[in-house]
Amino acid sequence: MTARVNTQQPISTEDIFASHEGGKLSVEPRLPLDSSRALSIAYTPGVAQVSRAIAADPGLAASHTWASRLVVVVSDGTAVLGLGDIGPAASLPVMEGKSALFKAFGGLNSIPLVLDTTDVDEIIETLVRLRPSFGAVNLEDISAPRCFELEQRLIEALDCPVMHDDQHGTAIMVLAALRNAARVTGRTPENMRVVISGAGAAGVACANILLEAGIADVVVLDSRGILSAARDDLTPVKTDLAARTNPRAVHGTAAEALAGADVFIGVSSGTVDEAILSTMAPEGIIFALSNPDPEVHPVVAARYAAVVATGRSDFPNQINNVLAFPGVFRGALDSGARRITAAMKVAAATAIADLVGDDLAPDCIIPSPLDPRVAPAVAAAVAAAVVR
Amino acid sequence: MTARVNTQQPISTEDIFASHEGGKLSVEPRLPLDSSRALSIAYTPGVAQVSRAIAADPGLAASHTWASRLVVVVSDGTAVLGLGDIGPAASLPVMEGKSALFKAFGGLNSIPLVLDTTDVDEIIETLVRLRPSFGAVNLEDISAPRCFELEQRLIEALDCPVMHDDQHGTAIMVLAALRNAARVTGRTPENMRVVISGAGAAGVACANILLEAGIADVVVLDSRGILSAARDDLTPVKTDLAARTNPRAVHGTAAEALAGADVFIGVSSGTVDEAILSTMAPEGIIFALSNPDPEVHPVVAARYAAVVATGRSDFPNQINNVLAFPGVFRGALDSGARRITAAMKVAAATAIADLVGDDLAPDCIIPSPLDPRVAPAVAAAVAAAVVR
Repeated sequence: MTARVNTQQPISTEDIFASHEGGKLSVEPRLPLDSSRALSIAYTPGVAQVSRAIAADPGLAASHTWASRLVVVVSDGTAVLGLGDIGPAASLPVMEGKSALFKAFGGLNSIPLVLDTTDVDEIIETLVRLRPSFGAVNLEDISAPRCFELEQRLIEALDCPVMHDDQHGTAIMVLAALRNAARVTGRTPENMRVVISGAGAAGVACANILLEAGIADVVVLDSRGILSAARDDLTPVKTDLAARTNPRAVHGTAAEALAGADVFIGVSSGTVDEAILSTMAPEGIIFALSNPDPEVHPVVAARYAAVVATGRSDFPNQINNVLAFPGVFRGALDSGARRITAAMKVAAATAIADLVGDDLAPDCIIPSPLDPRVAPAVAAAVAAAVVR
Repeated sequence: MTARVNTQQPISTEDIFASHEGGKLSVEPRLPLDSSRALSIAYTPGVAQVSRAIAADPGLAASHTWASRLVVVVSDGTAVLGLGDIGPAASLPVMEGKSALFKAFGGLNSIPLVLDTTDVDEIIETLVRLRPSFGAVNLEDISAPRCFELEQRLIEALDCPVMHDDQHGTAIMVLAALRNAARVTGRTPENMRVVISGAGAAGVACANILLEAGIADVVVLDSRGILSAARDDLTPVKTDLAARTNPRAVHGTAAEALAGADVFIGVSSGTVDEAILSTMAPEGIIFALSNPDPEVHPVVAARYAAVVATGRSDFPNQINNVLAFPGVFRGALDSGARRITAAMKVAAATAIADLVGDDLAPDCIIPSPLDPRVAPAVAAAVAAAVVR
């Protein structure tokens, strides 16, 4: 393939800052409040009837308030984009953008809640206290390994969908893209050798979803090399992952991992040597997802692989979580699911991959982020995958 | 005066419930997200520039996120309207209505946050952790005497405007109405004898704002009688209030308090005997503000007073907080005030009273809740009263 560069009107810093002035969200009344009658319905005395009804039958809160379908986008600002720990206030533009995307693509109300604490116990305690205010939690830009414990404990503490998008949104997109990349290169997914570079939030979740989808030969790299049972310097999360991956018990670095591999998935914020990529299997698959700087430039990657994807909007095959999270939460809320299970995530990936249809090509393995069919299809697939 | 009944299309229970289905609020992106360019500006990669800028200069969060002008409407559901302690979920329709009014009248974004805790320490701790997410706190429907401690400690803990509307919104409206009632009955406010029935959130705040406005002869009643220094059954808040009110050291019940009084303000959820009202000074002023059942029916009150006001929309002179809170918060946020001071509240009352102008009459002492001049006038007056 030849990497194409999208032609799009250039975006200036002035454009970006002007679009952010005053923030990116607006809360609007759903009905006009321009008459005495409207006031008496939406506020006192009319509202008292609704409050009284919910007090008598708490189930009515789901249908007669906004909370049960409200997604809170929660961050402590510890791992914001590629910028690192810049704090909650500086993370807000990202969270506002996410909330805007929830409405634009998923039709869901969403608000950002950024927290001035990085303590996992305190974050959980805060959300438990706020529980009657929302219907689902999208965790965002929270650093590893805290994000794993936080998500797991929140899932246990709250009776509503909770998902850390940096983990699972990315994983869903990687699985969707990988299925189509396998199809376009004539591979059987289950037989592929996959290397994941990066054992942070995205890397761990990618490994898990690939295993869930039946891809057994997954090797994960952290900054010190291949995760294996022989390593004694691993965090609990990595120890667990090492036990479930690397079935050929490979040891060493990226060079050892990539020799003969079919797939390289970079979610590391690092780089990968061109020389090592040249040792991959022919007609390989390279997903260099670090943003804004991919592990390898897509033009370079195209020399060694048949399919290349990045996180960038200015190259083909952009792996963009916006294809996943609006539909995943919409499907979970539509179906009344209390948890977002592995099966629901795999179903989301399948739905996204299937939408490419006859357009499938090395430079078209995933739908456009603007494809209006995606979120409804993902929502339907996720809802259908809910175990009842 | 003769109490007039407003003619308004009747409101059915069906109308009310239909208007509440799915909730009363919608979060909308302020700019369309319908192009690759728009996505690149509002989300990655563009948003990274704004986050990086805020990390370098935290002051930019105020201008380039929505948080600094976002009002959170916070409740624990312990004193909802006249319904009492019905809990956070059942309080949500009221809070959504309040948030809708903030946008409709004050042009401010607002979201409800209802808390599954009634512990003052925990409520404060929760809001302190969420501090980077909002710009002001409207406390709502929180029971007395907890509401006094909560508001005071939150004001100290947060560097942003905090106001318990059940206290101060009501107090501002009472002062505004009382000024015009005095004018229309030829009284000098400072010389009036005022009786407040009720020493809860609204009663305490009404007493305080009247004292602040120079009305010295204020007598407050709780369910056991007149607050006085002689009582040994008072809470700390009531003890403090007793020391600052009741300058003639009256003792006893409503009968003793009201004999010869110019003004009766009911904020008690109780009732008052017609026989006792007949002992008030001629051409008196009765504000019977309990909702939905005033302490005395306005038609009955009109037999004993020249000016009657209630909280009801179906009688003249409706004391409605919606005339106050949108402008008060708007003025505080416009001016960058960190606190809402007593002077700012008195300024709000004056602005509201002054807007009645030449329409002043016994059955027109306050503007209509729909008068579009009110919130801007209140905001300007509040901003002008900020001590710089």
